[in-house]
Amino acid sequence: MFSRSNLLCQKLLMRSSTRNFSFKQLKDVKPIIIRNLAWFSRHTAKENFGTKLKRRLRNLLIVTVVGCGTYYGYRANRNYKWFKDMTDSDNSIGTKPRVVILGTGWGAVPFLKHIDSDKYEVVCVSPRNYFLMTPLLPSVSVGTVETRTVIESIRSLVGPKVKYVEAQCVNVNPKEKLITCNSDGTDVVSRGDDVKAIYVPSKREGGASSRIIKDSARTRPQFDMKYDILIVAIGSENNTFNIPGVEEHAHFLKEILDARRIRSAISDAFESAMTPSQTPEERKRLLHFVVVGGGPTGVEFAAELSDLVREDLHHFYPRLVANDVKITLIEALDHVLSMMDKEISDFTEKHFHRENIEVLMNTFVKAIKQHEVVIQAKGSNEQQSIPCSVVVWATGIKPRRLTNRIREIIGLNTQSNRMGILTDQHLRVKGVHDGSLFAIGDCATIEQPKLVDRIQLLFEEADTQHRGALDLQQFRTLVEKKTHEFPQLEIFSARIEKIFAEADEDKLGFLTLTTLHSALEKADTKLRALPATAQVASQEGRYLADLLNELPDLNIENYQKHDIKPFRYKHMGSLAYVGGDSAVVDFTGARPILDIFRLKPLSGRGAAYLWKSFYFTEMFTGRTKTLLAFDWVRTQLYGRDISRY
Amino acid sequence: MFSRSNLLCQKLLMRSSTRNFSFKQLKDVKPIIIRNLAWFSRHTAKENFGTKLKRRLRNLLIVTVVGCGTYYGYRANRNYKWFKDMTDSDNSIGTKPRVVILGTGWGAVPFLKHIDSDKYEVVCVSPRNYFLMTPLLPSVSVGTVETRTVIESIRSLVGPKVKYVEAQCVNVNPKEKLITCNSDGTDVVSRGDDVKAIYVPSKREGGASSRIIKDSARTRPQFDMKYDILIVAIGSENNTFNIPGVEEHAHFLKEILDARRIRSAISDAFESAMTPSQTPEERKRLLHFVVVGGGPTGVEFAAELSDLVREDLHHFYPRLVANDVKITLIEALDHVLSMMDKEISDFTEKHFHRENIEVLMNTFVKAIKQHEVVIQAKGSNEQQSIPCSVVVWATGIKPRRLTNRIREIIGLNTQSNRMGILTDQHLRVKGVHDGSLFAIGDCATIEQPKLVDRIQLLFEEADTQHRGALDLQQFRTLVEKKTHEFPQLEIFSARIEKIFAEADEDKLGFLTLTTLHSALEKADTKLRALPATAQVASQEGRYLADLLNELPDLNIENYQKHDIKPFRYKHMGSLAYVGGDSAVVDFTGARPILDIFRLKPLSGRGAAYLWKSFYFTEMFTGRTKTLLAFDWVRTQLYGRDISRY
Repeated sequence: MFSRSNLLCQKLLMRSSTRNFSFKQLKDVKPIIIRNLAWFSRHTAKENFGTKLKRRLRNLLIVTVVGCGTYYGYRANRNYKWFKDMTDSDNSIGTKPRVVILGTGWGAVPFLKHIDSDKYEVVCVSPRNYFLMTPLLPSVSVGTVETRTVIESIRSLVGPKVKYVEAQCVNVNPKEKLITCNSDGTDVVSRGDDVKAIYVPSKREGGASSRIIKDSARTRPQFDMKYDILIVAIGSENNTFNIPGVEEHAHFLKEILDARRIRSAISDAFESAMTPSQTPEERKRLLHFVVVGGGPTGVEFAAELSDLVREDLHHFYPRLVANDVKITLIEALDHVLSMMDKEISDFTEKHFHRENIEVLMNTFVKAIKQHEVVIQAKGSNEQQSIPCSVVVWATGIKPRRLTNRIREIIGLNTQSNRMGILTDQHLRVKGVHDGSLFAIGDCATIEQPKLVDRIQLLFEEADTQHRGALDLQQFRTLVEKKTHEFPQLEIFSARIEKIFAEADEDKLGFLTLTTLHSALEKADTKLRALPATAQVASQEGRYLADLLNELPDLNIENYQKHDIKPFRYKHMGSLAYVGGDSAVVDFTGARPILDIFRLKPLSGRGAAYLWKSFYFTEMFTGRTKTLLAFDWVRTQLYGRDISRY
Repeated sequence: MFSRSNLLCQKLLMRSSTRNFSFKQLKDVKPIIIRNLAWFSRHTAKENFGTKLKRRLRNLLIVTVVGCGTYYGYRANRNYKWFKDMTDSDNSIGTKPRVVILGTGWGAVPFLKHIDSDKYEVVCVSPRNYFLMTPLLPSVSVGTVETRTVIESIRSLVGPKVKYVEAQCVNVNPKEKLITCNSDGTDVVSRGDDVKAIYVPSKREGGASSRIIKDSARTRPQFDMKYDILIVAIGSENNTFNIPGVEEHAHFLKEILDARRIRSAISDAFESAMTPSQTPEERKRLLHFVVVGGGPTGVEFAAELSDLVREDLHHFYPRLVANDVKITLIEALDHVLSMMDKEISDFTEKHFHRENIEVLMNTFVKAIKQHEVVIQAKGSNEQQSIPCSVVVWATGIKPRRLTNRIREIIGLNTQSNRMGILTDQHLRVKGVHDGSLFAIGDCATIEQPKLVDRIQLLFEEADTQHRGALDLQQFRTLVEKKTHEFPQLEIFSARIEKIFAEADEDKLGFLTLTTLHSALEKADTKLRALPATAQVASQEGRYLADLLNELPDLNIENYQKHDIKPFRYKHMGSLAYVGGDSAVVDFTGARPILDIFRLKPLSGRGAAYLWKSFYFTEMFTGRTKTLLAFDWVRTQLYGRDISRY
């Protein structure tokens, strides 16, 4: 019996290695499984109630004991390993080169998870001690998902081998390889949750909970830290485009506190509108919510807000919702979600119309005042004032102060891009020649070399026979050889003959310097800075970890020589939730696998499931996965909480 | 067959009514249950895999369809009823007397849940639009339980028939039966979550998320509201006892924002201590947490903090926890939990010793400075300064401004109790003669009439034969008749003979006015104001709802005439969590049922289960119950989150 099952196992293993595991074989395995399960269920046909109960109780006991034992054993082992790793990495300080990364966002976390901490001493410096799942912020701002669900402490996320220091880096010295942290010595106070009390201190009653506490738990003395490699991944901040009033009156949606503040303001608006002595005009103003910016953040926030109103607030304030609530989305371009497929923009606009979200396209915001938004239609000179309460500003980003500081230190001649730190294709910061400084994510821009700038060299290199002309074969070699260095050539690769024919207008059978120029110019027009998305930052972080793990020597300057591949972005598609259990998914440009299937843009309920499952799998830890699933079920069953605090 | 089972059912019903349902009868019922279940499982002995799968799938489908149908049907019905109730109560405005209650705490919510809204138009006015499960605040302040778990929106809690207005009542006019709300017209701004930015506005960068937003969602114009009955249930605020520095440097633990602020400060202290350039002294100071007040709040907070340190922070900061963390509890009396049994105090102190929580008894706090607490031992003249970071102040309460305002309006001669609004035994406010004003909870004190003050009247009433003396029978009649009015007589009831014998020192067989005086004086010494607990407030709220529901006419002044019973407090015991999966439970004074079993004080792990199950059942709604259970499981599995925001 034993030998037979052994034989079977071998057979199975053999077959499974060829990946031809058929349904027929399942029949062979069945008796083995049944025999093993039989020990657990071991029931005879004529079992009576007592023996059945006894058997079940016994099984329950076994499962409980084994389960608990496994769980606690696993926990003890995990703890042991955790402390061992921590001690090991403490003991090895000074023996390994130190990699310092600034930031705990989408760029830093994939880097920290993949960097080889046996090779490097890894230190993470950031004023925010958690990772934030930014795409779920619109959900948090209305209460579909709770705040602690979308954040994960950086210490638990990256494990015991990485050192984390909560500090604000204020200066970088690339020559001495030194960073300076925490030197803005302000008098710190605890979060006062009712700022009102600060404005009118005399009105603050003694013994009230809402007041300012002079914080004694926070002292952050200045310190310097040496590094061997520094990675800047500090992200960006909101751009107000110098429009007056944005800073004072509009909510952003970038950090967890913004989401909490918006949630509180929405509840506040409804409670204000319920005050008996409120005028109808004021009520209408209070319940007019304005979202500026038709990108994914703006669209998702408008959608989530509409869900909140329809699903929950409708319940508690039926008359207000029926008569007074209004949501307006303002977009400067002629489409929302303009970076996505046209089909998707159209679907979203129609969908928003059904959901009673007004979309003002081709409209610019000129000013924001405390109780109104001043807008101006494109091509018109007339300014219009809309009374409203909560304004959410989701338009664009700008570099942080430290980003600009680093650019200045290196020299603004080299660092000529005002949107961020310029890097080469290996993410090394331009102007720092020892390769000790890298930049990834929103704060960085990869310099993409133009083909036409180096056309002379390229031509000479390709023209192996020095004829002053390239034939098709030479042109093909040129494209193939240089695609790594000039990613814009990639669009040529599939149709070299056609490109060649197009450029060779006079049908000479070869390209001169002039005709090559016109062909390469076409490729250069396809050059575009990578979007400031989580996807880009995350791939850059991952790439950089692999690069450093494989780097044979930190002093290597010429990466090409060592055949180190430059960073290539793989677009995986874009997603946006548009409310009412609908989402939109755009695979345009997603490559390489997705392109093969030529997936069409998707919208509606199916896309919503894709959206949900995508974010569910994207969540970094089991804890946040569990919390997210629980939050979705809770919202479904009990609705969103409207308590205001 | 049918008739037989019918007969059986009747038999069962008959027997079960006599509560003699035996195990034997279970055998009679078994075939019936099995027959009904058989339809679902209907399996034959020789079932093969295919039919088994088919049967299971069919059952799954049936259960899913029936389950979803029931759920959505129930939801639709609930929604329909909700809106119908809301419309009904809107339509009936003006036809019913209006009951206004100020507050949404432990007194107000039981009242709102039990008041008959068909008889009254019920309006709730409070600046806090949610109910807060205060006993779980210590758990929230360390992250064992999340904030949204312990709060429930007042609108969903009390249903569609009660109107809620979020407003601050600032004045009461008992003569015109009018309240004034929201008249402190301050310029309001949104919660700025980083108050630091307010102090140094120049340092606030453009586009940063942490800044002040001038709030446009909050306008609360003043309004007056008429009432027929007003119930004051506004609670109390923290008492600083005018100790310098408490207001500026200590955390309270009374509202949800306090808990959030403490949680953030604890994380902040640990992150500060990890800053590389920190001195060892400063590190020790940063990690010294001080709790002032050895009542249940202080003890539970110290316990939860110790759990947090041992279970979670130990993991992330092993060296800090091993060397620098210290928790100190300061108590002015000679025992912690002094309102509970001595045995419990001893257990708690020993337990805290094991958990490394230092307890300083007989110690007064003289001042709190930003980085230290100044203490003085009882009987000593020497002041000692302890360096510390987070100080939690959990000592006592004082009346709110509105409480004092109401007392002044009525007249401080009548309202002579400085701790709160004085009421009679029916919770009617003293000095308001039309019975339109009630006060319950922490803001109220029930005036308990002293027996000796009315001894002349009592004696004459009891001395039916005008002998100038009371025999045992007359004394017994006196006690029995007056126990309702004078609850302090209750302790006599069980041992009248003994009391009589004790008072009748000269063995005359009767009591004179003088000897009766000494006996009644003894009873008066047992008089004590009810404690300011959730239990008292909740029973008062419930009592008042029943009283108003049964009141035949609002104009009745003499309640005794209509046989309306006065409020009697039933103590159900006290609970406190003391950390490390241990709790203490005290049943002393719990009556009437608990006294019969003479339950001893309980401590340890068993008490912790009792504590957990008690709070679980106490949670008002299914939503909060689910969240609480989930939070406990989550903390067990994944630990507490240490992200600081």
